[in-house]
This record gives sequence, C-alpha cells and structure tokens, in this order.
Amino acid sequence: MLSNCIIGIDWGTTYLRAYLCEIDSSSKSKLLAKKTDRGVSKKILSFEETLFNCIEPWLALYGKIPIILSGQIGSSIGWHEAAYLPCPINPNEIRSELFSFVARGYNISIVPGISCQIDSEYYDVMRGEELQILGWLQLNPKHAKGRYLLCLPGTHTKWVLLNDGKIQLFKTAMTGELFDLLSNQSILIQKQNTPFNKYVFLSGATKTLNSELDEFSHSLFSVRSMQLFSQLDKNDAQSFLSGFLIGSDVRAALNAKQWNISDFDSIEVVGAPHLSDCFSHALAIKGIECTVYDVEKVTLLGFVSLFVNQSNADCIKY
Amino acid sequence: MLSNCIIGIDWGTTYLRAYLCEIDSSSKSKLLAKKTDRGVSKKILSFEETLFNCIEPWLALYGKIPIILSGQIGSSIGWHEAAYLPCPINPNEIRSELFSFVARGYNISIVPGISCQIDSEYYDVMRGEELQILGWLQLNPKHAKGRYLLCLPGTHTKWVLLNDGKIQLFKTAMTGELFDLLSNQSILIQKQNTPFNKYVFLSGATKTLNSELDEFSHSLFSVRSMQLFSQLDKNDAQSFLSGFLIGSDVRAALNAKQWNISDFDSIEVVGAPHLSDCFSHALAIKGIECTVYDVEKVTLLGFVSLFVNQSNADCIKY
Repeated sequence: MLSNCIIGIDWGTTYLRAYLCEIDSSSKSKLLAKKTDRGVSKKILSFEETLFNCIEPWLALYGKIPIILSGQIGSSIGWHEAAYLPCPINPNEIRSELFSFVARGYNISIVPGISCQIDSEYYDVMRGEELQILGWLQLNPKHAKGRYLLCLPGTHTKWVLLNDGKIQLFKTAMTGELFDLLSNQSILIQKQNTPFNKYVFLSGATKTLNSELDEFSHSLFSVRSMQLFSQLDKNDAQSFLSGFLIGSDVRAALNAKQWNISDFDSIEVVGAPHLSDCFSHALAIKGIECTVYDVEKVTLLGFVSLFVNQSNADCIKY
Repeated sequence: MLSNCIIGIDWGTTYLRAYLCEIDSSSKSKLLAKKTDRGVSKKILSFEETLFNCIEPWLALYGKIPIILSGQIGSSIGWHEAAYLPCPINPNEIRSELFSFVARGYNISIVPGISCQIDSEYYDVMRGEELQILGWLQLNPKHAKGRYLLCLPGTHTKWVLLNDGKIQLFKTAMTGELFDLLSNQSILIQKQNTPFNKYVFLSGATKTLNSELDEFSHSLFSVRSMQLFSQLDKNDAQSFLSGFLIGSDVRAALNAKQWNISDFDSIEVVGAPHLSDCFSHALAIKGIECTVYDVEKVTLLGFVSLFVNQSNADCIKY
C-alpha cells in the first residue's frame, strides 16, 4: 500500500520515541500520534518485539508505510549496525546511505551515524543527532550559509560545528548519562526525583564554570559534603548536581580549542525543553546568548525531509 | 572478660573487612583471622545482622572482646552517626571521641570521622582513613615530624596533607566509585572483569595527565569511540578507563592550590596493592616518586594503637 504516512523512530540509549506523520501534497507534515518506549540500553524484550509492540496499532491502520529508525539502534549495541559517514559532511547525504532490512515483512531503514576525528587523533561519533541537524537545516534557508555552533543536550551532549550547512566536527559529553548514574546509584544523592531548584542549579553550574582548573575529580564529592554540613539541602542536591555537571560540560565547550566561542552571536540549542533551558541558563552565566529549538519539532522535520526530496531517496520508495 | 584480643572492622562503602587481632604483653599485635562482607551501600541484611553473622564464630571462641568499627558505618548512611572532628587534628585524638553503643549485649565503638574546610568554603570529610593515618604514624617515629602528602586510594581517593603529625586538610576524589559505575553500567565498557593491561592503563593515564584543560566531560566518551575505530580493544577498555580516571585524579592533585607538589620528596601511597601500584604508575609518568604502604597492615596498626595506649582510652576498657 502506498501511503502519505511514515513512521519515524528516534531510538536512543535511554528512550525510544516513535512518531506517526502524515505528509500532504505540498510536503507539509502533520504529527498524528506519538509513543515512548525503552531505549537501546534499557530494553527488556528483543529489538524486534519492542518495535512491533509499540507501532502495531499504527500498522493495523495504515499498512505497509515506511518505517525509519535513527539513533543508537544503528550502533554496535543496537539492532543492525549502520555505517558512520565521516566529516565534513552535509547531513543531506544520509539519504543515500540508509541501511535497509526486512522484519515481519516490513521494510525498515536505519539512518547512518556520523564520525569525526579530533586533532587527527581520537574519533567522535553521533547517531540520531545528524537527523536533528538535517531537520534544523530545513527550519530556515539561512541555516545553510555561515558558521554555527549547535548544542544538542540529551543522554550525551553533542557540540557541533557547522559551516555552510556541513558538519565540520563535533564533541561528545556524557553529561546526561553521568547525571543518571550519579543521581540514582552514587553516594552523592540520597533523595531522587526532587523538584528542580533553578537557584541551586545556578550555584552548581557557577562552581564548575568558574573553576580555574576544572578539577572535576576533586570537586564532585562536594555535592555530598555540602549536604553533611547543611550547605546544601538534600531536596536540592539533584539540582546542584545537574548544575555541576552541565557547568563542567559548558566550561569545556567554552574552552574548546576546535572553535572560538566569541565567533558566534548565539549558540543554537536543540533539546528537550527543560534540558535546553538548563544549558541556556548555564551559558547565560558566561554572558552567552542562545537560540532554543524544540528537539521533537526538529526531529520530525528530519524524518519528513528524507521523504519529501524523493529524487535522492531511492531506497525509501515502498 | 578481659582479653588480649580485639576485633577491628574497617566498614566502608563497598566492603566490610573484619580483623581478629591478638595483642601480646609487649604491645605487639598478631592477625589471627580476617573476613570480608558487604559494605554500607551494598548490604542486604541490617547492619546488626551483617556484623554478627560475620563475627559470631570469633565471639563464640573469645567472648566479650572489644569490637571497634571505622569507616562509612559511622556516617549518615551508616548504622550510628559518629562525629566529624575538625582539622587540623592529630589522629591520636580520635581515641577520646569514640562513639559507643551496645548491640546484642556487646560493647561496640565507632571511630569518629574527620572534616576540613577547603579555601574557607566547602567542606570535605573522611571516615576510615583517619584510622589508617593513625596506623601510618605508628609505623615510623620519623612520621611524627615534617610535611607529608598521603594518597589513600579506594572507593574514594583521599589526598591528605600532614604537618608534624597533624592532618592539615585533605581532598576527596570519587575515582573508585566512578570506575565502578562506568565499568558496569555505562555505554563505555561492553566487557567487564578483563585482565589488567599496564601499557593501556598508562596510555589512559597519560591522556588525562597531559591534557591542557582537563576536559573530563568532553574526553571521557573517547573510551567508547576509540573502541569503535579499533584504537582500543574491548578487552583493554577497562584498563584504559582506569588509567583515564586515575590520571585525572592525579592531575588534580598535582595542580592543587592547597599544596605544592615539589615540596615533597615522595608521595606516601596507602592502599590495596594493585590500586597503590596504579597510582604509583600514574605519578611516575610525571616523574614523582612514591613510597607504598599496605593498607591492611596500616589499618591493623591503627586499630591496635587504640588499645595499647590505654591511658588515653577509657572508653575501650571492657
């Protein structure tokens, strides 16, 4: 069955986010439904069972519509390994490098990842963010020209240098994963899922942002000792830890040798609303302006753009 | 019953280590038996059950001998909270500040912790290491005079500045806890409990020790990306991560504003044999010599010294 509907799935380390989209004749898209399930490192069932349990109701309604996956699902710890395309690269190039396979009679495609080499030495990789950057480029024709620094927070933060629509290089920080591990399983936090306290978040971010030496190893324990000496309420400890980790991440981005932060009028932050706010607050401490984009909107634009320029996308004709 | 035997228990975050010691008439001690059990954050049974299950056979043989506990068992996440004594302090002073209570008819004492304030700002705390430092001071009369920098690796590394037998201040790094969390539960390591590879350990340590900016946040992910691009074998990834974290810890100690590393002829490393070797290897990269002491020997000397100078130790006469 040919249809103007697609299923796009952002399947990362922590979450699976499935979107059912309708594309009209003028290439405009509409989100019909969305669902959330377990990410690659959190799954209980097989990848195939997880996927089909999630989208079965949509398939029952719409039949053999295109299914496209992005994110860690295409990595070495995922379902099928899709290639990493090397930088510099225009994200439009992922269209011609989709990895395709068949499961339960359905054609499924996985978006390739992107790699870069830092200082001709170690590599860095992304999966999922390349689709978000593709979507971000669709948002405004102006994005195709000029130099931009994108910050994409999530389980892993990606700081991405773009020049005339091409990803030049990027750097990864494990900020979200560290926050998750340290919040739930370390000695630092005795009380989880506490309300966000912006004032305390800012004091944590200021501590690492303003540290002369970024002694991450030697100052992290202060999150506990401050609670022992009533300098930090245990109900605020998670907010402080979040600030501490995001401050350290932002500090590294401000000091990165690979770009000069003063070259950018603003940092383009593409993330979930609360996380984007946190990074914007931390950047504001250093007087740096941000333009914030909603990651869901940008992800959908990325998925849809793989289908609307069909001349370049033979492998996704069904 | 008066006896020349004691039970000393180093009850930390990860492990409980129980020692049965005999003290002869000339104050020399002999280790009769030892046992290991679960630490404060790993326990399944109550603290009381854990303790008595562990030492019951010894109590059946020796009756009401003194039982003394040190470490996290005396913290806010332990059994009973013992005080923190402020720096500067001579570890001998802990004798008069033991916290005593009765369980199942047995008198039990907990060694107090020690606190310090860094740069008149945030606090740091230790529990367990003060007893090891007390033991280290007993090893050689020369230790009571002069300036020393002690490194005590474990779940948390403590870097301790001693002057004329007094602890001036100290700094904590969560290196062991981070290694445990990142080894077993992060995206970085796919293969656990791999053999130690010293060459790879050194390359990980060199990476963080020699980094200009200590961008912990932005370089940690390279432990994964190096595996993806065959720059690091997955069987060696744990050794690299260990080097990376210990290098970062040592780098912070070398750059600490609270002391000048060149003031010390050697660093006094007090830890378990493998961990002490790792820290010595990392310090050697920067040309710094170490003197290594076995933590078990020093811990026993600490426990025993609480009993042999009984004039100062009213609370541990049974």
